[in-house]
Amino acid sequence: MAKSKKGSKGGYIVDCMQHSFPERARFEEWRKGGIGCVHITLAIWEDARDTLKAIGKWNRLFEAHGDLIAQAESVADIERIAASGRTAVIFGFQNTSPFEDDIELVQIFHKLGVRVVQLTYNIQNNVATGCWEDHDAGVSKVFGRNVIAEMNRLGMMIDVSHCNERSCFDAIELSEKPVAITHANPGEFVGTDIELKRRTKSTPLIKAMAKKNGVIGLSMYPRMMKGGSDNRLSTFCDMVCWTVDTIGADHVGFGTDFYVGWPETEIVWWRAGRFARRSPLAISPKFADWPAWFRSPAGFPKAVEALSKRGFTSAELAKITGGNWLRMFRQCWAPVKAK
Amino acid sequence: MAKSKKGSKGGYIVDCMQHSFPERARFEEWRKGGIGCVHITLAIWEDARDTLKAIGKWNRLFEAHGDLIAQAESVADIERIAASGRTAVIFGFQNTSPFEDDIELVQIFHKLGVRVVQLTYNIQNNVATGCWEDHDAGVSKVFGRNVIAEMNRLGMMIDVSHCNERSCFDAIELSEKPVAITHANPGEFVGTDIELKRRTKSTPLIKAMAKKNGVIGLSMYPRMMKGGSDNRLSTFCDMVCWTVDTIGADHVGFGTDFYVGWPETEIVWWRAGRFARRSPLAISPKFADWPAWFRSPAGFPKAVEALSKRGFTSAELAKITGGNWLRMFRQCWAPVKAK
Repeated sequence: MAKSKKGSKGGYIVDCMQHSFPERARFEEWRKGGIGCVHITLAIWEDARDTLKAIGKWNRLFEAHGDLIAQAESVADIERIAASGRTAVIFGFQNTSPFEDDIELVQIFHKLGVRVVQLTYNIQNNVATGCWEDHDAGVSKVFGRNVIAEMNRLGMMIDVSHCNERSCFDAIELSEKPVAITHANPGEFVGTDIELKRRTKSTPLIKAMAKKNGVIGLSMYPRMMKGGSDNRLSTFCDMVCWTVDTIGADHVGFGTDFYVGWPETEIVWWRAGRFARRSPLAISPKFADWPAWFRSPAGFPKAVEALSKRGFTSAELAKITGGNWLRMFRQCWAPVKAK
Repeated sequence: MAKSKKGSKGGYIVDCMQHSFPERARFEEWRKGGIGCVHITLAIWEDARDTLKAIGKWNRLFEAHGDLIAQAESVADIERIAASGRTAVIFGFQNTSPFEDDIELVQIFHKLGVRVVQLTYNIQNNVATGCWEDHDAGVSKVFGRNVIAEMNRLGMMIDVSHCNERSCFDAIELSEKPVAITHANPGEFVGTDIELKRRTKSTPLIKAMAKKNGVIGLSMYPRMMKGGSDNRLSTFCDMVCWTVDTIGADHVGFGTDFYVGWPETEIVWWRAGRFARRSPLAISPKFADWPAWFRSPAGFPKAVEALSKRGFTSAELAKITGGNWLRMFRQCWAPVKAK
């Protein structure tokens, strides 16, 4: 039985996906929630230049709110920042769009601190295919393979949360390092009575991911959670238990996908980017309401409390709440030496 | 009298401006010339995205020629790289064009290792005015001052080699750190019988620069050197002596402006960028021939040998051949703490 309510080894939560409009109120919630590390998103459809602008914005946030947040580029950074009572922010992309068509941009953005990159966001791009497409040719023959190899070489974690099934399997096979699903739920657990059916992951896929030592970040995001906006903490705990039973306690973490604070027009940008003039999704163009038990990340301690009653050992609980992500970051961020 | 032929304290030359087409033959010349550190140019008219591409190219050069060169972002890096028998490469811009109209890009490029930035290249831009203009309103009221303050804050050295007189004086006054003239010659010494008359610096200007602890890099570049392509080593030594007599041995270094290896069309890019369709300069569109005594940077030891016979102490010679630049780098690259 779990005796400890601690998150990671250092006693803090790692949330491997949040995409709120960044402002002080959010950083204060992180502190209230005991979150030592958050992976945030610099780019959904942004190109290289747009992404420099996004980094510039975060640089000013780090300066203005240095009492609450700091950028981390390594696990040592995360540990130091979390130990200082602040939240470590990891730069990530939900798309390879900032790399444009240029393999050299992977190293440029690595140097700027980007540590997690998803191969594509929902649609087919020059690297892989997203979950909204009906056909999936997998990871592309030259650029896709080069991007994966370059990310492995430099030390960037590969994320396939929004990728289509075959692209996910390809990435897991091609990558020398574990591949992450930073924010998605298991389809077998959540079922098909959800809005974003295509955003869930199959059981064979999460098993293959775990076999290569990857981690899945589970989310209470209403559109991909059993129960929608009325989903209950007990259901979330059931999902954690189900996933641990299915792939083991070493491969499950948090990836809430939590967002608030954007103007509602932002949802059209996320869904349509520049490739369409309106959302191609038939679902509501409104933001979903977060469930009552998780109105903000300040709700994390309650979730950890509930999970601690589900029979995990304290070691298991520490892995699930943060330790698995730290282990995977350490592994994925170590550069591969040239052969 | 000079006893030592050593360059800097560590026995190596620092050349604060070369702009050859980068390839292995050049790096081998650097080693033959005993050059421990070279400041190179990533951008003349390039914008942010173009400049990322230039950095990508250098990243591959560092990988392919790691036995001869490595990137330096600090004086500690320079010392370590030079001690390993290689040449330290400092990233620089000859224009603020990579910052576009965005103050946040200064920090982005600092993070990417850029350590020297010239305020403008020959013409009027949004920061300052170049030496080809007939009118010079100095450093611009908002963006120009912000760029200087931001470079001071982060630790980037300000270069005014191609700036017009008033812009140079403004920069020296506005900057909290010394300002460099990385590559230009004193007009009073070289006279007006040269092709690029506007590229020389007045005696009051170099005195003002020295008073704020700056350094001027002297060049044998034929178009701005007494004697043109037939200029002699003795004339170069005379220029070093004249400049030391005028502003002191703490403020004189090398900035050869050496370039070879480009297709001749490149000269049109340097002179016309995207702002004109042909060179606005009435002088030859051909590359100048380098003088017989300095066909390449491998000629440096001969120059140091000749200088050592001009009555400098070994301490003075060490400053001129590299120590002054290292001192100035150390001073300019230290970040300024927020007040």
